[in-house]
Amino acid sequence: MRGAVLYGPKDIRFEERDTPRIVKPTDAIIRISATCVCGSDLWPYRGIQPITQPTPMGHEYCGIVEEVGSEVTRVKPGQFVIGSFFASDNTCPNCHAGYQTSCRHREFVGDAQAPFLRVPLADGTLVTTPEVPSEDMIPSLLTVSDVMGTGWFAADAANVKPGKTVVVVGDGAVGLLGVLSAKRMGAGRIIAMSRHETRQKLAREFGADDIVIERGNEGVARIKELTDGIGADSVLECVGTQESMMQAIRSTRPGGYIGYVGVPHGVELNGEKLFFSHVHLHGGPAPVRRYLPELIDLVWNGKINPGKVFDLKLPLDQVAEGYRAMDERRAIKSLLRP
Amino acid sequence: MRGAVLYGPKDIRFEERDTPRIVKPTDAIIRISATCVCGSDLWPYRGIQPITQPTPMGHEYCGIVEEVGSEVTRVKPGQFVIGSFFASDNTCPNCHAGYQTSCRHREFVGDAQAPFLRVPLADGTLVTTPEVPSEDMIPSLLTVSDVMGTGWFAADAANVKPGKTVVVVGDGAVGLLGVLSAKRMGAGRIIAMSRHETRQKLAREFGADDIVIERGNEGVARIKELTDGIGADSVLECVGTQESMMQAIRSTRPGGYIGYVGVPHGVELNGEKLFFSHVHLHGGPAPVRRYLPELIDLVWNGKINPGKVFDLKLPLDQVAEGYRAMDERRAIKSLLRP
Repeated sequence: MRGAVLYGPKDIRFEERDTPRIVKPTDAIIRISATCVCGSDLWPYRGIQPITQPTPMGHEYCGIVEEVGSEVTRVKPGQFVIGSFFASDNTCPNCHAGYQTSCRHREFVGDAQAPFLRVPLADGTLVTTPEVPSEDMIPSLLTVSDVMGTGWFAADAANVKPGKTVVVVGDGAVGLLGVLSAKRMGAGRIIAMSRHETRQKLAREFGADDIVIERGNEGVARIKELTDGIGADSVLECVGTQESMMQAIRSTRPGGYIGYVGVPHGVELNGEKLFFSHVHLHGGPAPVRRYLPELIDLVWNGKINPGKVFDLKLPLDQVAEGYRAMDERRAIKSLLRP
Repeated sequence: MRGAVLYGPKDIRFEERDTPRIVKPTDAIIRISATCVCGSDLWPYRGIQPITQPTPMGHEYCGIVEEVGSEVTRVKPGQFVIGSFFASDNTCPNCHAGYQTSCRHREFVGDAQAPFLRVPLADGTLVTTPEVPSEDMIPSLLTVSDVMGTGWFAADAANVKPGKTVVVVGDGAVGLLGVLSAKRMGAGRIIAMSRHETRQKLAREFGADDIVIERGNEGVARIKELTDGIGADSVLECVGTQESMMQAIRSTRPGGYIGYVGVPHGVELNGEKLFFSHVHLHGGPAPVRRYLPELIDLVWNGKINPGKVFDLKLPLDQVAEGYRAMDERRAIKSLLRP
């Protein structure tokens, strides 16, 4: 088969790779229906997070089970399934606590930009849909594999509750789906920080009441202005830079909550500043598996349509253009179909 | 009157100062029944947190109202009162949210090691006891002014619940009262990290089930050993150094909670490490005012006896010895009576 491999900065190739096969009796092989490019794929693509060897890419996936190992009992060939970017046994204490991305036996699933994918710990990792979905539902189902689950976790970690005031820092696909999540959780007012017209538009469509284009001190001042000088109850940090993290902390009211899901790059938090900010801080790799049943259900029943974040749809062999378009911010998120 | 003034490292003097008087109509003057030396007083005393001028000291207090300003309506002369180290109006949005130490009109009360004290925003700040207490109850009532309230906040911020496993980092008075708080909140198992025999003994008396003497990697390994390899549900960080903060983060299970109340000195948290730790982090200057009614009630009814942390009781004019004994770790906490 042919799949995406990153060779170095801006050098992603679509090339021959071994077709995956069952390695352990707990594995499943799935035929990918759709995959996509994640904001976090851009860190190595841009060379900010260096790679040491040609690296297969992609960790968002959904598709049809092709084959299962001898110990797999909960999914079977022919079923449509969705999984998270970390395979998890879903039985260890961390999984039971709802933190499947800290599963004791977790394995990163990192080569999904391909026609076939091996998923370890298939029973714990994969969740089936009620039946094989129609074509038009596939983009939204794909999002729950990561980007929608991550936006949802950001809102959950930020303790979004009915009536609360919410700020979303970051207008990438995760931030936009953070807006959708906050809306779905009943937020009273949602303020999206965004400078890009197409993203502002989608943020409004997903439920944002206000858009703040300022950043840094001015951004904080604007949020304070909109929140009686106090700051927001809940802030979703969906970028992962020092600037965005400080933006989040300074936009939160004393006693308020920050959910941070942007993988931090070069972030250092000053203990004293954090202490006197009086915020609650929670985040990490989103435990998507915890939310999969609920989010699949919401998509299946047409309650949410997160697939709207895909404003570029390409055949898988054009994966390089998918990365380029996101890198140049011509696209919010690129969907790839084998 | 004569009170404590810090001149520089290890140089605390008991000297003539102006007797405080009503400055604003919302002030009260109280006659101090007891005050004490806080672990945080040792930062400037040791010169780690430099001072620029002779500085009156002390922020823990209880006593009898001597005089009130014209706008004070909720306390009156003759009543026994306790307040927090930050005066607060108790009416602003931050106070209403329970974060009185982030009150919009907060004022630090920093000159309590003296016979008389001016307390700003008296109506919001001071809480009365049912009647003037007996002498033997005064030490415990004094603790709720800060050290007990801070230990309680640490446990609350760390989400201590019935049956949970709790680790307490730091065996100072705050840490020890963190143990007492966790016990009172129903913790199933309390592990105190302590190397000092007298403190270990008090920790056990307050409810600790296990004592861990190791620190750093060995301390983390020991905690993991005691918690099925997972880490604790709740960790109270009661020191404020880089080492203690990392000890806390690394001792917490994914999805667990850290309450941190040690004022951070030179602490920098690496964003990526924090992210992958999957912990909840909350802390700051303890909003003691929120807990005053409940904690006064617990002391008044003999449910808790936090005054046991005072293992040195001195007349106020021996304040210098009170600091020395704590600095040299000869005393856990020094009580001072004018």
